[in-house]
Amino acid sequence: MFRYELIKEEKHTGARLGRIITDHGEIETPIFMPVGTQATVKSMDFRDLRDLNAQIILGNTYHLYLRPGEEVIQAAGGLHNFMHWDRPILTDSGGFQVFSLGDLRKISEEGVQFASHLDGSRHMMTPEKATHLQNVIGSDIMMCFDECAPASADYDYTKKSMELTTRWAARCKAAHENPEHQALFGIVQGGMFEDLRAKSAHDLVAMDFPGYSIGGLSVGETKETMYHMLDVTTPLLPKEKPRYLMGVGSVDALIEGVIRGIDMFDCVLQTRIARNGTAMTSRGRVVVRNATYAKDFSPLDPECDCYVCKHHTRAYLRHLIKCNEILGARLLTYHNLYFTLNLMEKIREAIRRDTLTELRHDVFRKYGI
Amino acid sequence: MFRYELIKEEKHTGARLGRIITDHGEIETPIFMPVGTQATVKSMDFRDLRDLNAQIILGNTYHLYLRPGEEVIQAAGGLHNFMHWDRPILTDSGGFQVFSLGDLRKISEEGVQFASHLDGSRHMMTPEKATHLQNVIGSDIMMCFDECAPASADYDYTKKSMELTTRWAARCKAAHENPEHQALFGIVQGGMFEDLRAKSAHDLVAMDFPGYSIGGLSVGETKETMYHMLDVTTPLLPKEKPRYLMGVGSVDALIEGVIRGIDMFDCVLQTRIARNGTAMTSRGRVVVRNATYAKDFSPLDPECDCYVCKHHTRAYLRHLIKCNEILGARLLTYHNLYFTLNLMEKIREAIRRDTLTELRHDVFRKYGI
Repeated sequence: MFRYELIKEEKHTGARLGRIITDHGEIETPIFMPVGTQATVKSMDFRDLRDLNAQIILGNTYHLYLRPGEEVIQAAGGLHNFMHWDRPILTDSGGFQVFSLGDLRKISEEGVQFASHLDGSRHMMTPEKATHLQNVIGSDIMMCFDECAPASADYDYTKKSMELTTRWAARCKAAHENPEHQALFGIVQGGMFEDLRAKSAHDLVAMDFPGYSIGGLSVGETKETMYHMLDVTTPLLPKEKPRYLMGVGSVDALIEGVIRGIDMFDCVLQTRIARNGTAMTSRGRVVVRNATYAKDFSPLDPECDCYVCKHHTRAYLRHLIKCNEILGARLLTYHNLYFTLNLMEKIREAIRRDTLTELRHDVFRKYGI
Repeated sequence: MFRYELIKEEKHTGARLGRIITDHGEIETPIFMPVGTQATVKSMDFRDLRDLNAQIILGNTYHLYLRPGEEVIQAAGGLHNFMHWDRPILTDSGGFQVFSLGDLRKISEEGVQFASHLDGSRHMMTPEKATHLQNVIGSDIMMCFDECAPASADYDYTKKSMELTTRWAARCKAAHENPEHQALFGIVQGGMFEDLRAKSAHDLVAMDFPGYSIGGLSVGETKETMYHMLDVTTPLLPKEKPRYLMGVGSVDALIEGVIRGIDMFDCVLQTRIARNGTAMTSRGRVVVRNATYAKDFSPLDPECDCYVCKHHTRAYLRHLIKCNEILGARLLTYHNLYFTLNLMEKIREAIRRDTLTELRHDVFRKYGI
């Protein structure tokens, strides 16, 4: 089962409040999805994730393909069983990692040959294989295998790449073994070129996917360029389908994305900066590793009521991070995810009340954007 | 406040069931104390520790002295506040780490000069300083500063070292600033020499400490030698005071120690082997990292009802450990602590029922000892 319901559009911005229904439960949109690269949202267990009210998490097909591998996931009966997570899971297609992590890549019409970043072993990824792997994983939402062209690519390369991605999308759709229970999203590409974005959206919409992702953004371009690309893309996507902006999760981009009609986001930012000792707070980022916090016995964020902020001080968290203690990474990860999921809840509430512009103003001012 | 109550002695072995009352709550003995080296039981947060029913944890004075340092702990109002742990804490004196981690050691009557293992900075630790640091930390149970003579030391060296430890114990007692609320234990040394152990115990007992530790064991000698040293030492300690066997925590040594009249144990074994991917189970150790568990979807220990065993498989845990995922270390740590604390609960129950010999037989047989 997969269904998207548009509940309302915010009066002033058109931001969308909605609901996605899957076999593993409902998701309120707009939503932020914590990234669980290799069958774990780093340092979080399923109790933490439930506690955080994470409604859906991500898995990475590339990583899961290399470890533990298709055979183990298959034997486990899918990723939900393997990692003991009974809520929805979205998987990417592996495309992004093949291009960002894989070595010795060789792209052809057939697919991509690459060497594993772990052991250099040679692999071939094709639209059919990426789809099959996601069928084995059993994710509620799957992605078409796409080429992520480099941000520096010129018009001609980007055009050919986008057209290849569209042909691959058709092959993914044809290869999909379980469309009743797993929704396969098409991925709009086209770099920073308006007409290519439009062509990509047009051709994918014609294939009637149950949802659409916007890929190839947040790859080094300015925020203004990214927002402009959203401005030209989302109006071309059908209102009755969810839209997922891939790999974007900074505070400002979440709000600006929602205003431009995005329903779903994911990003490793929250969890990655946590492990390096940086907290996201209502007053901007706090680099708790800094010496200035050595005797600061206040919470990470005085406005936050997560259990880390209720019980632990910046001084303690700094100590843990300085000592490379696992608990430091864990507590900061918990807080950053709480902060972000709580922001999304505030965004949903603001759409309900038609006060999203005020929320943006308020959040940006305090965050110092 | 500090009080030890001997509730009963087991009929066949003389093993002791008791209770320690501190300002931060009661501790049932015999007890195992998880080690929280630098203000954290590695990877566990206070909710995990409560969930595990950890009744008391350890802190290491040497580590806390180097990081975050006396000034931060003082400003935080002690270690309980700093790490948000409201149950009892025991601290060692730093002696063991000065000898095992410190560089360029120079021992004198005054104390020990050493170089930090972190940055090579020079420090002097004395009985007075170790006591003062523990007063600042605010631990419920403190240790006298002792010299841990190397296991290879000869009779003369060990004798001089033991006598120095006894003189240092008197200085620690004299320096103690808060005896009403923090109990200072004397540490019996004397290597593997019966008469030195006896002399050490005799002289410390004459000083009337509220409890006694047995140090310098489990340093490379055989288990038989260690048990023999306990056999000659514990009968010399007063029945109405608790006895703590330092740094010992293997399944057999816990049971054999209890049988020889020990009330308290600590060990890094549980948490250290967890991080390397080894689980303690009712059927012995399981090295879950091994390939044989790749598709083993059974729990770590079929007899364990901890949340890890109830919800996660060996295959998943192996995957996490193989990928160096924080969650792998955390889940195995949780299980190993649960297993050990549960074993101590079984031991207490067996003392209550006078069935400790049967429990030993049963546990050893299954564990393969």
